[in-house]
Amino acid sequence: MKEIMAIIRPKKVTKTKEVLDSLGFPAMNAIRVMGRGKQRAILNEISFEINEPELLDMEGSMRYIPKRMLALVVPEEDVSLVVEAIMKVNHTGQIGDGKVFVCPIEEALRVRTMENGDEAIS
Amino acid sequence: MKEIMAIIRPKKVTKTKEVLDSLGFPAMNAIRVMGRGKQRAILNEISFEINEPELLDMEGSMRYIPKRMLALVVPEEDVSLVVEAIMKVNHTGQIGDGKVFVCPIEEALRVRTMENGDEAIS
Amino acid sequence: MKEIMAIIRPKKVTKTKEVLDSLGFPAMNAIRVMGRGKQRAILNEISFEINEPELLDMEGSMRYIPKRMLALVVPEEDVSLVVEAIMKVNHTGQIGDGKVFVCPIEEALRVRTMENGDEAIS
Repeated sequence: MKEIMAIIRPKKVTKTKEVLDSLGFPAMNAIRVMGRGKQRAILNEISFEINEPELLDMEGSMRYIPKRMLALVVPEEDVSLVVEAIMKVNHTGQIGDGKVFVCPIEEALRVRTMENGDEAIS
Repeated sequence: MKEIMAIIRPKKVTKTKEVLDSLGFPAMNAIRVMGRGKQRAILNEISFEINEPELLDMEGSMRYIPKRMLALVVPEEDVSLVVEAIMKVNHTGQIGDGKVFVCPIEEALRVRTMENGDEAIS
Repeated sequence: MKEIMAIIRPKKVTKTKEVLDSLGFPAMNAIRVMGRGKQRAILNEISFEINEPELLDMEGSMRYIPKRMLALVVPEEDVSLVVEAIMKVNHTGQIGDGKVFVCPIEEALRVRTMENGDEAIS
C-alpha cells in the first residue's frame, strides 16, 4: 500500500480527479498548498488565483504559488498506473507542472466497516 | 515511531481530540482537506459546511466534502491504542466515517529542546 | 530520499525559506495547520493571527494554534543539513518552537521532464 502525493496546478485538479475516478480510484483528498519548485513566480498563474489574498500573504511574498496536493492511497500493484495517469494529465512541458511522490503506508482502516489493508482502500 | 493520519468528519474533530488528550496524546495537527471515499456527496454534511464556498468551489463541483485530517506522531507501542480510540469515536456506521492511515516516521525532533526520537514526541 | 516536515511558527516561515533557499533547497510546500504540542494556548501568538476566525473556530476552541507546515523532499545526504538549518532558524527556547519529522519517500517524479529519483528533486 502506498500513498501517492501529487503537487499540481489548481486548474488541473478536476481533470486529474476525473481520470483517476474513471480508472477506479475515486477516493482521495485535496489540500491547498503554497508551493514552488525551482522556478520563481509564474505571473499568470498567480493572477488566476489573485482572489486568495490570505494565501498570497501567508509567506509575505509572491514567490510561492498556490498549488493543490492530491493524496490517495492505493495497493502496490496500482502505483505505476496511478502515477502515470497523473503525469499524463498534468504534463504540459511548462515550468510548474508539479511533482509526484510515492510514500509507504503501513496500514489503512475504514472507520465505518473496520476493514483494514487493501480492503480499506478498495 | 509512526504517524497516524485520520481523515474524519469536521464535527468529530473536537471529540476526537478530547479523547486523545485524555489518553495522553495532546499533540497533533489538524488540516482542512476536501475528501471523498467511494461515496458521492452527502448533502447534510455539505450544508453543515456550506459557508465555506472557497472549499466547495475548489474542485469545481460538489462531489468532494470538507473533511479534517488529524495527524499525530506516536511511539510504536501506542499505535494500536490511538488507532482504536480514533475508530471508536468516529464510527457511526454511516458512509463518510473516514479512514485512518499509519505511516512510518524515521525521526522526530523538538525544536525547543533539540530532543529527538520518542522523547521529542512524549 | 526523505521528506522533511517542519511544523513551525507562521512568523518563522519567511526566514526558514530564505535560509533553505540559500542552502540550495528552494523547492518546498507550505500548508496551514492548526497544531499544538503539549502547551496550552499562547495568547500573543493567537492575537497575531486573530484575523483568521475560521481557523480558530475550526476546533471549537482556542487551544489549537495556527502553525505552518513546511514540507520538502531532499536526498539522503542532505537530510541532516536541512534539519539542522530548520532547527537553528526556529529555535527560540520558548514553548511553541515546533517539531521536525523525517519520513521515507520511495519515489519522486518531476511532471514536466519525467525525471525521477534524486534528479526529480535536484
